[in-house]
Amino acid sequence: MVATYRELFLRHLEEKRYTNEPVNLYEPINYILDLGGKRMRPILTLMVCDLFGGEVTKALDAAMAVEVFHNFTLIHDDIMDSAPLRRGKDTVHKKWDINTGILSGDAMMILAFQTLETYKGDEFRNLMSVLIKTSLEVCEGQQYDIDFETRSDVTIEEYLNMIALKTSVLVAAAMKMGAIIANASEEDSNLMYQFGLNLGLAFQLQDDYLDTYGDPKSFGKQVGGDIIENKKTFLVLKSLELGSEEDARSLQLLLSEKYTDEDKVEKVKSVFDSTGAPSAILQEIEAYTEKALSLLESMNLASEKKDLLKQFSRDLMQRTV
Amino acid sequence: MVATYRELFLRHLEEKRYTNEPVNLYEPINYILDLGGKRMRPILTLMVCDLFGGEVTKALDAAMAVEVFHNFTLIHDDIMDSAPLRRGKDTVHKKWDINTGILSGDAMMILAFQTLETYKGDEFRNLMSVLIKTSLEVCEGQQYDIDFETRSDVTIEEYLNMIALKTSVLVAAAMKMGAIIANASEEDSNLMYQFGLNLGLAFQLQDDYLDTYGDPKSFGKQVGGDIIENKKTFLVLKSLELGSEEDARSLQLLLSEKYTDEDKVEKVKSVFDSTGAPSAILQEIEAYTEKALSLLESMNLASEKKDLLKQFSRDLMQRTV
Repeated sequence: MVATYRELFLRHLEEKRYTNEPVNLYEPINYILDLGGKRMRPILTLMVCDLFGGEVTKALDAAMAVEVFHNFTLIHDDIMDSAPLRRGKDTVHKKWDINTGILSGDAMMILAFQTLETYKGDEFRNLMSVLIKTSLEVCEGQQYDIDFETRSDVTIEEYLNMIALKTSVLVAAAMKMGAIIANASEEDSNLMYQFGLNLGLAFQLQDDYLDTYGDPKSFGKQVGGDIIENKKTFLVLKSLELGSEEDARSLQLLLSEKYTDEDKVEKVKSVFDSTGAPSAILQEIEAYTEKALSLLESMNLASEKKDLLKQFSRDLMQRTV
Repeated sequence: MVATYRELFLRHLEEKRYTNEPVNLYEPINYILDLGGKRMRPILTLMVCDLFGGEVTKALDAAMAVEVFHNFTLIHDDIMDSAPLRRGKDTVHKKWDINTGILSGDAMMILAFQTLETYKGDEFRNLMSVLIKTSLEVCEGQQYDIDFETRSDVTIEEYLNMIALKTSVLVAAAMKMGAIIANASEEDSNLMYQFGLNLGLAFQLQDDYLDTYGDPKSFGKQVGGDIIENKKTFLVLKSLELGSEEDARSLQLLLSEKYTDEDKVEKVKSVFDSTGAPSAILQEIEAYTEKALSLLESMNLASEKKDLLKQFSRDLMQRTV
């Protein structure tokens, strides 16, 4: 089923290539859209529209808006992170330059909004309203992420709020937009948003977990990457909360610019293990997944449709290696 | 009259200060909005709404959207130009850093769209549509401007298209939005757009002229600045068109990185003078102003209202020193 939605979306993406001028503005936009990725967000828009009995093809432009917006954030985030690579290829600012990245990114954000102009009346207004609110939240999340780099007193609550804004709200918005297009009730649309928010949080926390404990063979990124970059992830914050004063001191030393020894990842891991942070994060992931699934129960949706969403959630969260 | 609109707008701006969190995202937004400027665009939105018999206070949010969008372009343009100063104060990326400039700019563009959410139904849709189209055109204009820096075959037509996109379309959009809010007919709204486009072009070409021939005492920027920066302005392109081969060779030499002598500005000026470019640009400015005023004639608007717009246009273009 997911494969069908992906196929549909990729065909739409191909048809909608940006051939406008100036070429130097639109070429980087096609470039990043062609880099691939799981296309999880647009697939969710199509899937939710379908589940609520909507016409899937009608959701293609909304799916496109979400994917274009997401890729805009990738261009600007890569500049801010000075990242040379994205999905194994040069980032836009690396292949062209920073100014091209800034300007193509700007144009891309506008294109995301423009894509929604195919919808009419209240549908247009509601979709636009969701995307505007979500876009602003994603910027806020990115700013919190930057702020946290230089703060030593970040709480777990603040961290969860940051990852919700930076990553989960867009997943939630993608799903809500599918519900809006299928003419689902406001209540069901909002439940779907909350479902996406909780599933998105579970997914992001799992990403934190796998970044340290994943199987290098199946995990897409470098295992231990967060530790090498001294990121204050959930595992770090939880270890500081649960561990002894000595654990905290060790972590602070290990996760500093000064500490670049080869055994860094292993040593940090052993502090995590001693504080019980890994099982705490697994519990948290489980709790958010459960919360998402329980929201599903309240939705006005046939049980076989709910089963499809449950199966999708399970598949998504099953990448435990 | 203009003073009243400005006063109204500034009070609205003050009321709408962004107090949201994170502070590091919203503070630079308030900072750039507080730097001042003529507020020409929002004033035009209010004025046009008023002229067409609309309720001026109803146009305040649209005026705000235009001003917020304009200031977003200033933040990102200043990064791209590595400009240290804006209106005599530090630019955002100078006062904070480039990443702050990128992200606050992004948020600001979204806030511009969000500001339009106070409008309903078709009004919302039409205003949004104008702002989206215009925003994209402004990005295209900026890209052409960047492209032209490294091209030696820019035509006058291309140059006019570039300045129209980069600067005039937003003036035109500001005016059209005022007309939409006043419930003017589609024809009148489009005429007002064309009026703004032509007046904007006249204004921008006058800026080109004054940059070389203005009175240092009254011109806001450094006279000769375009020449020092080797910009391919209308005066340069027209001199290349009208002048001899020798004039062209002189200009190419003078307007190169190599030529940094003190007499650069004077020497370029004397090439301009010998080719007749200054009188050609004055003719062009006159032609765009006349075109704007003639569009006014076709509008369904009482003659005393037209007179007010004519007076405004004359005042705007009277800064010949």
